[in-house]
Amino acid sequence: MAERPDGFERMWADLAPVGRSAATGGYRRQPWTAAEAELRAWFVEQATARGLLVETDGVGNTVAWWGASAADKRERVLTGSHLDSVVDGGAYDGPLGVVSALAAVDLMRERGVVPARPLGVGVFVEEEGSRFGLACLGSRLATGAVAWTDVEGLRDAGGVRLGDLADGGPGSGAAGLLAGVAAYVELHVEQGRALVDRGAPVGVASGIWPHGRWRLDVTGTADHAGTTRMEDRADPMLTYATTALAADELARLAAPDARATFGRVEVAPNGTNAIPSRVTAWLDARCSSEEALAELVAAVTSRAEERAAHDGTAVTVTPESLSGAVSFEPSLVAPVAGPRGWPVLPTQAGHDAGVLSAAGIPSAMLFVRNPTGVSHSPAEQAEAADCLAGVEALADVLGPLVVGAAR
Amino acid sequence: MAERPDGFERMWADLAPVGRSAATGGYRRQPWTAAEAELRAWFVEQATARGLLVETDGVGNTVAWWGASAADKRERVLTGSHLDSVVDGGAYDGPLGVVSALAAVDLMRERGVVPARPLGVGVFVEEEGSRFGLACLGSRLATGAVAWTDVEGLRDAGGVRLGDLADGGPGSGAAGLLAGVAAYVELHVEQGRALVDRGAPVGVASGIWPHGRWRLDVTGTADHAGTTRMEDRADPMLTYATTALAADELARLAAPDARATFGRVEVAPNGTNAIPSRVTAWLDARCSSEEALAELVAAVTSRAEERAAHDGTAVTVTPESLSGAVSFEPSLVAPVAGPRGWPVLPTQAGHDAGVLSAAGIPSAMLFVRNPTGVSHSPAEQAEAADCLAGVEALADVLGPLVVGAAR
Repeated sequence: MAERPDGFERMWADLAPVGRSAATGGYRRQPWTAAEAELRAWFVEQATARGLLVETDGVGNTVAWWGASAADKRERVLTGSHLDSVVDGGAYDGPLGVVSALAAVDLMRERGVVPARPLGVGVFVEEEGSRFGLACLGSRLATGAVAWTDVEGLRDAGGVRLGDLADGGPGSGAAGLLAGVAAYVELHVEQGRALVDRGAPVGVASGIWPHGRWRLDVTGTADHAGTTRMEDRADPMLTYATTALAADELARLAAPDARATFGRVEVAPNGTNAIPSRVTAWLDARCSSEEALAELVAAVTSRAEERAAHDGTAVTVTPESLSGAVSFEPSLVAPVAGPRGWPVLPTQAGHDAGVLSAAGIPSAMLFVRNPTGVSHSPAEQAEAADCLAGVEALADVLGPLVVGAAR
Repeated sequence: MAERPDGFERMWADLAPVGRSAATGGYRRQPWTAAEAELRAWFVEQATARGLLVETDGVGNTVAWWGASAADKRERVLTGSHLDSVVDGGAYDGPLGVVSALAAVDLMRERGVVPARPLGVGVFVEEEGSRFGLACLGSRLATGAVAWTDVEGLRDAGGVRLGDLADGGPGSGAAGLLAGVAAYVELHVEQGRALVDRGAPVGVASGIWPHGRWRLDVTGTADHAGTTRMEDRADPMLTYATTALAADELARLAAPDARATFGRVEVAPNGTNAIPSRVTAWLDARCSSEEALAELVAAVTSRAEERAAHDGTAVTVTPESLSGAVSFEPSLVAPVAGPRGWPVLPTQAGHDAGVLSAAGIPSAMLFVRNPTGVSHSPAEQAEAADCLAGVEALADVLGPLVVGAAR
């Protein structure tokens, strides 16, 4: 139990081993696992050591409030991020925003800030969607963007039902956690190299590209890999392979304004000597405009259908999630960012800040430079000096918000 | 417990539900599972009801002998097949040969055959290689084609070690089970439509095409599917997809004398929003000659390497098993098959008969017509009348072998 708040470096060092795979060097901090429970316990311990008021809902979203009583009805300001990771992800995506938020509270206290509005440090669950497939699950529930009844039946890869791990129904507190929040500022490690190119440790997000996930289901005819003549096959693997290559090719044609990726594939029966009966794969696509995204997905679907007709297979493309374009609220950050010359960048990654923004909560994001530009990988990186610059930037932005007008 | 031997139809009906997946209609009779244990218990029960002497080794290969005492040193004749299936396989691949062999013993007894040589009905384990990846594992161990020390460390997809399920080491009986066997005749459902085309219920195999399994390992750079620019990627999925299409294309160019299939793929980390760090896939390739097979695999490898250079990924192709061409022994079957006009067919599928043949045991195979031509799938089929024609053909072939000279 921490008796006094730990500083940034100590907090970071304490988190470093949690959920780290010795085999890959990557983090496995999936929600509702032992690793994530340890992270959450650590967060509550650090919040308590700071005298913050911890509130949590039935799905595990947690906010630690500075300057608030439970009955407080004032407008509130929120910062924070998430602690879960993709499978074999990096150390920074998520935790950097949480640790920086706690350190920013310490820094503001040192500066003598007294919050006229309560400031919350929030941790949202399943931001990555790595376990139940729906990214930003926690913030979508907290904002009402999805209903509990629509997601409680989701199952993870092992068949475990979300409703058996968490409760987001009436009375679970999910709906009330963000009551009164009038501004959200999320700090995040950059997931590209724009800040490296600009030579800046900290930047500001202008908005989030529209993006989504589409499931490709290709069915063919399971058969013997040896005895079935090439001309007698209906092999869904060929339809899938063609579609994966087409998605990449079409996104490159639309570059720099598009991304398309097939990173997840499931094959049945997945036997070496059996032509598959079914290949299921997921397309992750993102574009700078909603029109371009719709066009890209339509073009990929069309190429899949063409090849399916050639292969004698059947293909369907089903949207699993779709997030529209997000424009962040310039007034939250600009008064500080403008004078300091922080670069303004678009991002192609979904974040809880995008969900809160879509729910009508004015939101903003700060990015911290990532020398490798790599994310969702153990190679994700941030220099210690840049992390401390991020803490300072966050305190600079939050200070006026909690002392003065929220907007 | 069967008090009297069951007839073909009853035996077939008793096996029908064992290991059948309600979800897919396919069979899941993987070795060392409850389903396979039930099949093995059924076999021992049926053999015992026929007064056959059951011998088994430490890996689970089982032979039920007719006309043999344990000390018997005479030349022996073997028939049989296997009871395991691929994942979601059909009912016939394997079990048809075992059930037909038991029924053929009954028919020979009705015909008054008294074996001058012992006749064994054999069941080999893990013929499909669906659990530990090495096809014909049981017969390879029984013939000494692989050493126990080379395979006991193999692990299944769940990490279970073969050596913890079975014992093929010294003293396990694996080496002695086939002692004295001078001829092997295996009946099998046809895995193509040649007998349909010829209008014949039963056919004879001339030999087995050379075939093998090669593992393709492609490594790239895990990264964020949204934020990573298309031009900054090293995506192993693209290298794999190109290789899968190239294998299909090259095999079609060499048709009708080649087959190439990618039926099994594993992706890491296999997340929708992560560019994979690694794709591992297995090539199943078969050709009418060993030279053509080597050329085909070299051409596929070359196309994989070309695309890897383009993608910035690294690729290796590793042979996991390779079976040379097998020519079956015509003298075992020809005296019966010739006069009856049974068609003679090559096969592209590996079988225990191929392993025994390669070990110097004169071997032959009979095929029973399959109306769909489909195999390794629930759609695999054989008409009841054709199955009974197969039993009769098997008895016709085995009768002279156990009464007269083995060759």
